[in-house]
Amino acid sequence: MKILGIDPGHSRIGYGLLETEGDMTALDFGLIETEPGALNDKLAELAARMAKLLDALRPDIIAIEKLFFSKNQKTALAVAEARGVIKTIVLERGIKLLEYTPQEVKQAVTNDGRADKKSVAQMVCLLLKLKSIPGPDDVSDALAIAITGASRYKWDNLSMRNK
Amino acid sequence: MKILGIDPGHSRIGYGLLETEGDMTALDFGLIETEPGALNDKLAELAARMAKLLDALRPDIIAIEKLFFSKNQKTALAVAEARGVIKTIVLERGIKLLEYTPQEVKQAVTNDGRADKKSVAQMVCLLLKLKSIPGPDDVSDALAIAITGASRYKWDNLSMRNK
Repeated sequence: MKILGIDPGHSRIGYGLLETEGDMTALDFGLIETEPGALNDKLAELAARMAKLLDALRPDIIAIEKLFFSKNQKTALAVAEARGVIKTIVLERGIKLLEYTPQEVKQAVTNDGRADKKSVAQMVCLLLKLKSIPGPDDVSDALAIAITGASRYKWDNLSMRNK
Repeated sequence: MKILGIDPGHSRIGYGLLETEGDMTALDFGLIETEPGALNDKLAELAARMAKLLDALRPDIIAIEKLFFSKNQKTALAVAEARGVIKTIVLERGIKLLEYTPQEVKQAVTNDGRADKKSVAQMVCLLLKLKSIPGPDDVSDALAIAITGASRYKWDNLSMRNK
């Protein structure tokens, strides 16, 4: 099963694709950076590039970071709009969408819901047997979200089967 | 020129279509209410219904309410996601998108940036020569946003022409 993790932002969107069969392996990862400019031009560019990415990678499941609160409300609202754009592209294709809070991701990857970004990146590197930490943060975060999706989805399906 | 005003929400989205040639007239208005359920199901339904609406009404310009701050951050983020969905559908069709804050809408329609909802609805009724206030609030707000777009767009184009 191929699971794509997405770390949404208004200008930088990290992504990481995992194969979950056998040992979990990173198939692809990278960063979508939209051109500087008006928010709506960036959103239009994001929609087009996200559509192209999904059609190229063809993930079975997508996991995305969920946000409820933020200190900077203006930034949070811009990121929420970008998340709405990403979700539209995902939902239009009928791909299953999972969402996790930053705390859930930290907990799943490092076993500590309050871990810092560096610890998360190091665990991503270790779990996926990568030679070095895939930077910038947006990319390792996206892989962390994909790892969370892979482990939580497997676990949720196992517990349902045992009920 | 046909201008469509949209008042975005996470469950209720008001819309109002104006013809701006000659006397400004309301061609159509109404409410999209998504089924109760998980946020992502509602967003998928919103995307599909918004696409259908735009393809039926074929507006030249769309005006939407812009939000920077809100008391209820969780609601604000859900509405921002819905706005991201609506924007995707608009931008995918290459339709020109204008945005106004609630204060700009109140100012344009009632000449008072702090007017209450009732005064806005009454002015909408008066300006569009409607027999009664088109309820609920989401619908009269959408018409108010369209009126704002129509007057501001005309004014901005006139001032550019004179430069």
